[in-house]
Amino acid sequence: MTQLETALAKADENIPAALDRLFELLRIESISTDPAYAEECVKAADWLVAELTDIGFKAERRDTPGHPMVVAHSGGEGRHMLFYGHYDVQPVDPLDLWDRPPFDPAIEDTPKGKVIRARGASDDKGQLMTFIEACRAWKETTGELPGNISILFEGEEESGSPSLIPFLKENADELKADIALVCDTGLWDENTPAISTMLRGLVGEDFTIHAASKDLHSGMYGGPAVNPINVLTRILAGLQDDDYRITLPGFYDGVPEVPAEIKKQWEGLNFDGEAFLNEVGLSKPAGEPAYSALEQIWARPTCDINGIIGGYTGEGFKTVLPAEASAKVSFRLVGTQDPEKISASFRKYVRDNLPEDCSVTFREKDGAGATTLPVEAEEFALARDALSAEWPNEAIFAGCGGSIPIVGHFQEILGMDSVLIGFGQDDDQIHSPNEKYALRSFEKGVRSWVRVLDAL
Amino acid sequence: MTQLETALAKADENIPAALDRLFELLRIESISTDPAYAEECVKAADWLVAELTDIGFKAERRDTPGHPMVVAHSGGEGRHMLFYGHYDVQPVDPLDLWDRPPFDPAIEDTPKGKVIRARGASDDKGQLMTFIEACRAWKETTGELPGNISILFEGEEESGSPSLIPFLKENADELKADIALVCDTGLWDENTPAISTMLRGLVGEDFTIHAASKDLHSGMYGGPAVNPINVLTRILAGLQDDDYRITLPGFYDGVPEVPAEIKKQWEGLNFDGEAFLNEVGLSKPAGEPAYSALEQIWARPTCDINGIIGGYTGEGFKTVLPAEASAKVSFRLVGTQDPEKISASFRKYVRDNLPEDCSVTFREKDGAGATTLPVEAEEFALARDALSAEWPNEAIFAGCGGSIPIVGHFQEILGMDSVLIGFGQDDDQIHSPNEKYALRSFEKGVRSWVRVLDAL
Repeated sequence: MTQLETALAKADENIPAALDRLFELLRIESISTDPAYAEECVKAADWLVAELTDIGFKAERRDTPGHPMVVAHSGGEGRHMLFYGHYDVQPVDPLDLWDRPPFDPAIEDTPKGKVIRARGASDDKGQLMTFIEACRAWKETTGELPGNISILFEGEEESGSPSLIPFLKENADELKADIALVCDTGLWDENTPAISTMLRGLVGEDFTIHAASKDLHSGMYGGPAVNPINVLTRILAGLQDDDYRITLPGFYDGVPEVPAEIKKQWEGLNFDGEAFLNEVGLSKPAGEPAYSALEQIWARPTCDINGIIGGYTGEGFKTVLPAEASAKVSFRLVGTQDPEKISASFRKYVRDNLPEDCSVTFREKDGAGATTLPVEAEEFALARDALSAEWPNEAIFAGCGGSIPIVGHFQEILGMDSVLIGFGQDDDQIHSPNEKYALRSFEKGVRSWVRVLDAL
Repeated sequence: MTQLETALAKADENIPAALDRLFELLRIESISTDPAYAEECVKAADWLVAELTDIGFKAERRDTPGHPMVVAHSGGEGRHMLFYGHYDVQPVDPLDLWDRPPFDPAIEDTPKGKVIRARGASDDKGQLMTFIEACRAWKETTGELPGNISILFEGEEESGSPSLIPFLKENADELKADIALVCDTGLWDENTPAISTMLRGLVGEDFTIHAASKDLHSGMYGGPAVNPINVLTRILAGLQDDDYRITLPGFYDGVPEVPAEIKKQWEGLNFDGEAFLNEVGLSKPAGEPAYSALEQIWARPTCDINGIIGGYTGEGFKTVLPAEASAKVSFRLVGTQDPEKISASFRKYVRDNLPEDCSVTFREKDGAGATTLPVEAEEFALARDALSAEWPNEAIFAGCGGSIPIVGHFQEILGMDSVLIGFGQDDDQIHSPNEKYALRSFEKGVRSWVRVLDAL
């Protein structure tokens, strides 16, 4: 039996205890976007410090102006790897759509196999624990942690990471490694692992349009009094034309067409856009008609209204002209689109389209550009081979529709590329009620990291 | 001293006790639109029955499938008058904008004089009590209620009056009178009383657009997955063109131009649209540019979004593509615009503009057409003269931007016109936080009804 085989067997043997450990972490209500849960975030950080210390890391909680970071080092020799994950989770509303309490994890049987059900099971507690358990399996096999590993866990990934950039800058010497390993992405399908090498960026805008100094009665004022909800809907509707092309001046600067060879590779994946949409009750790609669903997700920018509120929204009817109306809008970015320029263009567009007597307040929100990783580097090939050895199908280099801003920050601040490996699935319902993580993703995820750590 | 003078003196003398009585009614939290307050509505109805019984009416609470009606009869001789008011009130949110608890009434000193501050002070508890107190003053003067008076108070005026039409139909013989008196409108200005003779109608639509079967993550689905908030804003924005003209086919059928002579009379009122808007933090009429602010309010239809909600609306940001988004839209109607045709045209427009994979649910909502009253009838002249005798300036026949659906129902079901007299002011903040009713409105309101009852 090789050491690798021993470590894999150890990983398998540890699964029941590993699930107990994961469940402890899932029970901590570490919602970062809501200040009411700040203490839970500290609790999650402390739990991780204890866990990492237990398997031999030198681990510390590092407090920030926001939620704390966890930093750990193995102190070994060789290629220096920095593993990143996040212990914070999304809010859980609407709570009534959950089939069980979101912070009371359980293994459930489903038609597609056993799943771990809880907020954060997939995004990102379940994923980061696959790496910790792989380290544990190696430690129990060789008596030592596998190589020169540093770890960074943050607690603000779901709320814009306000403390991250200053923290990376202040601790650049300590955190800079040869390569980063990030576990916050998904499988291509249940049998095909993926390394994400193109990530969309994000600009989020959260703003309020103000009109009258108070709510008005539409019987008394309807007509001459400007209605900020009417204004808001006109402004938002004007962001896209009839072909879902975004109308902001300069928006498409830096949006590349996908190179023919990559496009061909993607076509080879036989991605069924309609089947993908059928899973969530839809049937037809709704975005730019000239692009396939996969291209829309991996290679095209978007404009989505993520939240809107104004006026009377309770039961029944109220003929009110409200004093204000608010929306949260996000743009997914690709190529070299500049988040700052797009934010400025958006804000100018809103201001230019405000009627007299209206004003606008923008709340602060960071943006992050899209990222393209150097698939030709050695670590990418080694990781791909290690994954291919674990799963039925060969690993692929994939795009990713979501932002993982950390990857851009690692490039810019630490001059370090990231290998993005994860075991989530499209139906994990991250950010939605009833989030889950396939038990098989967890089990084979641990084994995958055992192999990748061996290869690197 | 004439009997009228005695009754007016009695009304003045009763004011402190009358305010105590009004405050008792204002303390009852009779919000009709929210089922949580159903018992408070019953309490308000019972309170009114006791009050009317106390001054000699034969009064009863009449239960309905919704909130109860109050019906009372004086049983006297002569012209049969039906007085109408409503004891239910608007919701109080946003509560944090109130300077005192909405159901804890108080007299407050303001730069414009003393006011009664409470939810319902003006709309409509304070107003209906002016009539009851006038009846009390006459009773205490002559020993009898003043003439052949019936009373109808409803408890669902602020929630679409679902029980009203069946109740009027079932009790038509009992309720039909020679003329209705309705106290739910306002003064022209603090020295000029008004009888409202043109009322706008209303169509309210409350609907939800559905897309995916659950909330989605915009990183994973943004692009090909249709976003119901984007769809909703496009649909809503399309309801008006750049000149605020409503685009629904057939919408302007039955919208008359104001006759030249009426227009001239309105111009004679020297209404200052900008000053009117300045009161609420606005400066310029925002509606159809071809019409003055007064014409917009009294004689033009509108389209206003009264409420909108979708996606994540809490603190922070969430890149969610929600499963649904909802809005409440109302159209104010004039002339002979048909609420049913407009509702049908609206619903067809929404359905015609739904993209594939979206569906819509419309909640039930009644509409009411606009009303024009016969100012040439005797009761209008008598009431106008009585009001002119009480106030510094002569009473005017005015338009009214709001709907008072009861007036149309009285016309259609009971074949009876309504004289609309009220003492509210534009800055009463009805339907808003810090609702008030001028103490002078209450005092002179009671005296006004003492005179009108004498005249009729």
